[in-house]
Amino acid sequence: MGGMEPIDADSLGRQIRFIMEAGRLTAVLRQNTVTGGSRRENSAEHSWHIALMALVLGPLAPPGTDICRVMSMLLLHDLVEIDAGDLFLYAPEADQRRQDAAEQTAAERLFGLLPAGQESSVRALWAEFCERETAEARFARAMDRLQPILLNHAAGGGTWRTHGVTADQVLGKVRLIADGSPALGSYARGLVEDAVRQGFLTGNLPAGPRPATGA
Amino acid sequence: MGGMEPIDADSLGRQIRFIMEAGRLTAVLRQNTVTGGSRRENSAEHSWHIALMALVLGPLAPPGTDICRVMSMLLLHDLVEIDAGDLFLYAPEADQRRQDAAEQTAAERLFGLLPAGQESSVRALWAEFCERETAEARFARAMDRLQPILLNHAAGGGTWRTHGVTADQVLGKVRLIADGSPALGSYARGLVEDAVRQGFLTGNLPAGPRPATGA
Repeated sequence: MGGMEPIDADSLGRQIRFIMEAGRLTAVLRQNTVTGGSRRENSAEHSWHIALMALVLGPLAPPGTDICRVMSMLLLHDLVEIDAGDLFLYAPEADQRRQDAAEQTAAERLFGLLPAGQESSVRALWAEFCERETAEARFARAMDRLQPILLNHAAGGGTWRTHGVTADQVLGKVRLIADGSPALGSYARGLVEDAVRQGFLTGNLPAGPRPATGA
Repeated sequence: MGGMEPIDADSLGRQIRFIMEAGRLTAVLRQNTVTGGSRRENSAEHSWHIALMALVLGPLAPPGTDICRVMSMLLLHDLVEIDAGDLFLYAPEADQRRQDAAEQTAAERLFGLLPAGQESSVRALWAEFCERETAEARFARAMDRLQPILLNHAAGGGTWRTHGVTADQVLGKVRLIADGSPALGSYARGLVEDAVRQGFLTGNLPAGPRPATGA
């Protein structure tokens, strides 16, 4: 990044076309509502919120995690929804598989708008996010999973209530958070326990002491 | 960034409170519409879009520009609007001065939600953006100014039409773009010229050859 290249009108034209196409992410609605609960959140707002979360919560990532790459992944990760739409986090597995295929096709088209060299680096970032093998991808995924839990908890149930989601389903997502940041996994688990105690999330919590890592 | 610190429940509590408060940026409406023109854009969507622009257009920044810091500034730069509201880009100067004062008060309250060490680093990023002295701040400002020009040009006038904005007013903003990236300044100037030619932006363009840098 940086490093003023010679001006290439064709290359810039492609970048601008990609940017304008990306703007359509504002029309992709998610299940949960925005802070305050007045309307459904869209994927552009969600992407901004979790990139900001990565910036603020960066100190809780494992040592050496490159937060810049985390933010870059989060800014890009939902673009494929422009063609594929947003799938509810708790959708059945057959739907998830169909969604994965649709997102691959979308990545082909959308990232293919970029100049060739940039297409490959952006696709690599997106693939890294999907594969969840690096510390950066796992921390990025943790942001993506933590944000709706924060919103649903603050809303006194939110989509947990409207979709009849249970505590063990949410705890399945908490494991992905703990995988990116043990401290944030513990925090998220605490929110789930609190929601069950307060009665706006149904289900029993596993007995026994709460693990220190939340994993 | 990175560098797993000991878990500090108070510190994490403050970070989460800040993140939840930040979510209110989704309720701050801007004058221009989203891509497609169906409704007004909000400042959270705008922040996402320009952070993504910084990622994609980073190669057009001056050599050595730290695009990570640019993205961080752009994710944060509008948070003060949660208290101060969004001021139209072409508002009179007296309004701009009142806005600056309101934004300082907002920064005090909002960034003050963060743990002390983080408050100072986040405030420093925001101040750097406002002061426009570093290459990063100037490139960030260029993204902030270029995005509405892209949207208005694509919409065949947009807020230029609804607010009777003229070509020389827009060219004043183009100078700020050229200051962050000469190549993007030239590109933006080309959009303004095209808009005048097509008749959806009023005003005469300065005579003479178009400067190579757009400055």
